[in-house]
Amino acid sequence: MSQSVTSNRRLVLAQRPPGAPDASTFRLETAAVPSPGPGQMLLRTLWLSLDPYMRGRLNDGPSYADPVALNEVMCGGTVSVVEASQLSGYAVGDVVHSYAGWQDYAITDGSDVILKLPNGAAHPSYYLGVLGMPGFTAWHGLINIGKPVAGETFVTAGATGAVGQISGQLAKAAGCRVVGIAGGRAKCDYAVKELGFDACVDHSAPDFAAQLAAACPNGIDVYFENVGGTVWDAVMPLFNVNARVPVCGLIAHYNGEGFGGADRLPGTMFAVLVKRLELKGFIIFDQYAAHYGNFLVEMGKRLADGSVKVREDLIDDLEGAPAALTGLLAGKNFGKLVVKVA
Amino acid sequence: MSQSVTSNRRLVLAQRPPGAPDASTFRLETAAVPSPGPGQMLLRTLWLSLDPYMRGRLNDGPSYADPVALNEVMCGGTVSVVEASQLSGYAVGDVVHSYAGWQDYAITDGSDVILKLPNGAAHPSYYLGVLGMPGFTAWHGLINIGKPVAGETFVTAGATGAVGQISGQLAKAAGCRVVGIAGGRAKCDYAVKELGFDACVDHSAPDFAAQLAAACPNGIDVYFENVGGTVWDAVMPLFNVNARVPVCGLIAHYNGEGFGGADRLPGTMFAVLVKRLELKGFIIFDQYAAHYGNFLVEMGKRLADGSVKVREDLIDDLEGAPAALTGLLAGKNFGKLVVKVA
Repeated sequence: MSQSVTSNRRLVLAQRPPGAPDASTFRLETAAVPSPGPGQMLLRTLWLSLDPYMRGRLNDGPSYADPVALNEVMCGGTVSVVEASQLSGYAVGDVVHSYAGWQDYAITDGSDVILKLPNGAAHPSYYLGVLGMPGFTAWHGLINIGKPVAGETFVTAGATGAVGQISGQLAKAAGCRVVGIAGGRAKCDYAVKELGFDACVDHSAPDFAAQLAAACPNGIDVYFENVGGTVWDAVMPLFNVNARVPVCGLIAHYNGEGFGGADRLPGTMFAVLVKRLELKGFIIFDQYAAHYGNFLVEMGKRLADGSVKVREDLIDDLEGAPAALTGLLAGKNFGKLVVKVA
Repeated sequence: MSQSVTSNRRLVLAQRPPGAPDASTFRLETAAVPSPGPGQMLLRTLWLSLDPYMRGRLNDGPSYADPVALNEVMCGGTVSVVEASQLSGYAVGDVVHSYAGWQDYAITDGSDVILKLPNGAAHPSYYLGVLGMPGFTAWHGLINIGKPVAGETFVTAGATGAVGQISGQLAKAAGCRVVGIAGGRAKCDYAVKELGFDACVDHSAPDFAAQLAAACPNGIDVYFENVGGTVWDAVMPLFNVNARVPVCGLIAHYNGEGFGGADRLPGTMFAVLVKRLELKGFIIFDQYAAHYGNFLVEMGKRLADGSVKVREDLIDDLEGAPAALTGLLAGKNFGKLVVKVA
């Protein structure tokens, strides 16, 4: 089904999944297109971003953001067009990056609008990726926490994902040796041939740890942690003294899988001590006020001059979002996952 | 036995202990007092420092410092007096802080001398504690990594130990609520009544975690990690967003005990992410060139004005060092452990 001018498709949270989300997690509803009151505007969704953090929102219990309530529309960043406005500063036809969620239409008072897009932006969906939250995550984690120095070795997992593809290219621009980790030959080839990584190692290979060590002959100085899980076990022995570890995500853990086996915390803490590691977690939503403007200017230049390339993984139609999210959490996407809603 | 003018007692590493060091780990030898050649001086040990890092030196294998070789004198920081000198800048009677090891006499070319003590220093042994490596560790970890802010909550384990007693008093001076963790009522009472901590919790109490939580009603902003082990499990749930964790030691792990149970790494990494924690390991030996001078000035003032108090745990005679080290690793000391050799 495609977007209608008279009805609003909404994907609501039907039940909280104990593990990976599946077809029963969300429920499609249709409702009338709402009308904005004074101080409000009506947004129509053009693009919807799917991101790993969404898994956390499906859980009840305390975290850095509130969970999505049962029977409420699933949250999500969007690029949307203003269809009607009684809100100062917004006119019909304006395109905004907002958090309208998994639906065709949304009413907002503007509080969830991140940015009005520049007129005629060539790639509006980029504001969900390279110019949006994932790109900003890559930039902030790399520059402000990773602090790469030319000649150092930078490693990221999810090398072709929304964050990894950007952090790797930025680290390359900073003069680092850049080594990616990804699932499967096609992604690894893409990272090296298209994104310019120096190497990319397939984490599904039986000798993954040995391959990673071979790809990092001078050890690892910055590891951008966005997956967790068993990749850490291969990375940790390779850390150089004074290595930095920005921690922006742990996608391998999000569905609640344990990893069995012995307690790995003492070994990690020993590495922190002996190798003087710096591990720093961050939530990019904290950083917008201070840094998003600078980021947009720099990343805009890099897109314009071609020094950063972008790969999107586009899903056609809102109703494909639930399955696409399940796939994202299993590493099935190849590039920044975006739903073309309209 | 006490120090002789004609023979040199040396405690050498007899064998590498698989777990805790015991009576068979070291062997007492006696030898003639050596004579310095050109460019050398002869040091006589007055005070010997015993410190947790020594356990690591008993192991073979790579770490941040070389292991002590079998049948060689055990390493250790000392306060020593110059008995004979053919080394420019040092005269008979000078007192130095050096690394002469577990012996009465040592020849040195000066390369292991940290500092010539000021003439007439009132407490030479303090250069092994509050004015030496442990005090410097406390100061650097707190100020440069912990970055305490007035009103925040600071927690340290080993509250009456060489590092904890100093970091806690400095955090108090910085305006923090200071909560110690120590083994047993006597140490906890001392931390509160003598050192001025706001609270101190006995880690051997069956309801230790609940007591720690009660002592930290506003959570934890800085945790000075020097023990590891199971204390971490009680500390971690109490971290506030943006908490800092200087990691200077993991004494609970040094004898190689495992902690059984499930893998605690995923939970810790989740806390790092969601609470935006900063964990940073450091080895204080890296910091002398840049910071030791500043530290000495500041800590000297605090000793002079009485705003920092010092508790030493003195062992009489070099031959008690092996048993005292075993006790240190089991938390038996009460204050900075120092051996009075002469």
